[in-house]
Amino acid sequence: MSKGITTRQEDYSAWYNELVKKADLAEYAPVRGCMIIKPYGYSIWEKMQAALDLMFKETGHTNAYFPLFIPKSYLSREASHVEGFAKECAVVTHYRLKNAEDGSGVIVDPEAKLEEELIVRPTSETVIWSTYKNWIQSYRDLPILLNQWANVVRWEMRTRLFLRTAEFLWQEGHTAHATREEAIAETEQMLEVYATFVENYMAVPVIRGIKTPTERFAGADETYCVEALMQDGKALQAGTSHFLGQNFAKAFDVRFATKEGGLEYVWGTSWGVSTRLMGALIMVHSDDQGLVLPPKLAPFQVVIVPIYKMKPNWPKFQKKWPSSKPSSCAGASRCAMTTAIPTNRAINLPTGK
Amino acid sequence: MSKGITTRQEDYSAWYNELVKKADLAEYAPVRGCMIIKPYGYSIWEKMQAALDLMFKETGHTNAYFPLFIPKSYLSREASHVEGFAKECAVVTHYRLKNAEDGSGVIVDPEAKLEEELIVRPTSETVIWSTYKNWIQSYRDLPILLNQWANVVRWEMRTRLFLRTAEFLWQEGHTAHATREEAIAETEQMLEVYATFVENYMAVPVIRGIKTPTERFAGADETYCVEALMQDGKALQAGTSHFLGQNFAKAFDVRFATKEGGLEYVWGTSWGVSTRLMGALIMVHSDDQGLVLPPKLAPFQVVIVPIYKMKPNWPKFQKKWPSSKPSSCAGASRCAMTTAIPTNRAINLPTGK
Repeated sequence: MSKGITTRQEDYSAWYNELVKKADLAEYAPVRGCMIIKPYGYSIWEKMQAALDLMFKETGHTNAYFPLFIPKSYLSREASHVEGFAKECAVVTHYRLKNAEDGSGVIVDPEAKLEEELIVRPTSETVIWSTYKNWIQSYRDLPILLNQWANVVRWEMRTRLFLRTAEFLWQEGHTAHATREEAIAETEQMLEVYATFVENYMAVPVIRGIKTPTERFAGADETYCVEALMQDGKALQAGTSHFLGQNFAKAFDVRFATKEGGLEYVWGTSWGVSTRLMGALIMVHSDDQGLVLPPKLAPFQVVIVPIYKMKPNWPKFQKKWPSSKPSSCAGASRCAMTTAIPTNRAINLPTGK
Repeated sequence: MSKGITTRQEDYSAWYNELVKKADLAEYAPVRGCMIIKPYGYSIWEKMQAALDLMFKETGHTNAYFPLFIPKSYLSREASHVEGFAKECAVVTHYRLKNAEDGSGVIVDPEAKLEEELIVRPTSETVIWSTYKNWIQSYRDLPILLNQWANVVRWEMRTRLFLRTAEFLWQEGHTAHATREEAIAETEQMLEVYATFVENYMAVPVIRGIKTPTERFAGADETYCVEALMQDGKALQAGTSHFLGQNFAKAFDVRFATKEGGLEYVWGTSWGVSTRLMGALIMVHSDDQGLVLPPKLAPFQVVIVPIYKMKPNWPKFQKKWPSSKPSSCAGASRCAMTTAIPTNRAINLPTGK
């Protein structure tokens, strides 16, 4: 870890920004608000993904993949969803470029205008529920328990690496259920999965709670969340799990034949965590010396090996550090002793080389 | 596997399309040319990813993540690259929607027009080499051996599930080297990784070769490829590895101080395989009865369990199927015997439920 970063005391925000860059975790991309996740940062994210993915599968979920683009009209289908998401989105309007006649490069071909604009997904409820409509006919088709690992885009005006970027990586779970009770149980279960992950892998204690109506996910009846405390005394949202009620089922007309022969709207949930977790991880554990990582997510496991100049008094030494082992140094005047002194201090080893 | 698909003899192309849908692997999304990879299909792709990712890491590569969007001007920087890629691309021109005044839904906010249009990446050489310019100063910074797992978009006019879709999933390796020889060795190494994967995991024999100049990657000096033979006698490109020479280094002015004190352009490679491999996998092994998968990539390992009506003559039975084991059936008149009769026939078990 490079020295010379602003201290937390001086300027907490500057400390964070400098640390992310100096620890070689991420940097800004040439496109406004987008980030490049560097190898060291990405290897931490991969460890998070692996642990979460296993937890999702152990709770009965399967991965799938839905498209990046959403027809513009879909965003208007669920009334409060459009208020929350349709605003700051990347909009695809054309599908072709052509050479500029003056040879200056490429220009957008005006003849290749899309009939309906496409939105780069800010979240995938709309495209997924339009698909569930085809997949669900009867109670036998339920529940559907899917997750996807994907990139999403929200055109944020003020961005910070990992914490708020225009494009970010995340997972989004989307489930469909026959009853309200089952959907609420799923919402609560996934909140508990997130809490367990953040506490056990990230070593960050969280508060489980319910968002106020103004902070609720646009389209949800209730948003559950886990919040973690940062060193500046502020809370950071670490993960959310939404009980969607029948809102998206109604917006996309997803009904199922019940066991009793009726026809009812399907109940839904969605839940997600993103690369924002990287921000929380950094902010909770690191200090003025640099990055500190919890052992389960550290890409490099570090052991400090003290080397002594003279033959040590072995029994006395071993009494102090019982886990130490002598290397072969019979007769040597200089002798290496290995002792596992645990450290969470992140070591900047070269990656990707 | 559902019955009633067109036979290969009748119509090879229809057979493929029906099989992909009936085996529940993928379907078309509401957005033209995009696909939804269903849970069963995605679980095969996950197995491919896991095996390939391990092989990349064993050969010294690390994962990273570069942004989805590329500034339009970047595509013009490398002359042949622009010819090959700048044409059929999804173009983001606006970053905001707003409510239509007549209450009919949302419209693109004309005031939220981007100064420079953004291209949804068709491949990432340009944005990555613009970044390598900042990362590479001297020979000590080389080689850089990165890979990313990502989605890319190429606005194809004629699409087929897995084989050619507007959006697809892939991995793209991007490496930077001090010498021509090292870059060529990397290109060849990754071709061999692909050949090994396709042969050992997909159980598909391949031909290693070099593309003709017209089929070469736009921006490469040489494109190496592995090609597999489909049941209709046609070859399918399974993976490509490109020796980029100094083309992108020159386009983005990426030079390094040599050991000898000189200043030289960096040598590059890029290499990729995509969800198109799913198409090859299906087309090579399946038959008129449906999907057939090689054991290493099958999400479900199937064992056939014959159940006999009378007490079998155990020693005789075991002689015929040495791997069989009797279940506890002392004194029973009907008794289950387990014997592992290997089958590659894909069984459609419910997933995501």
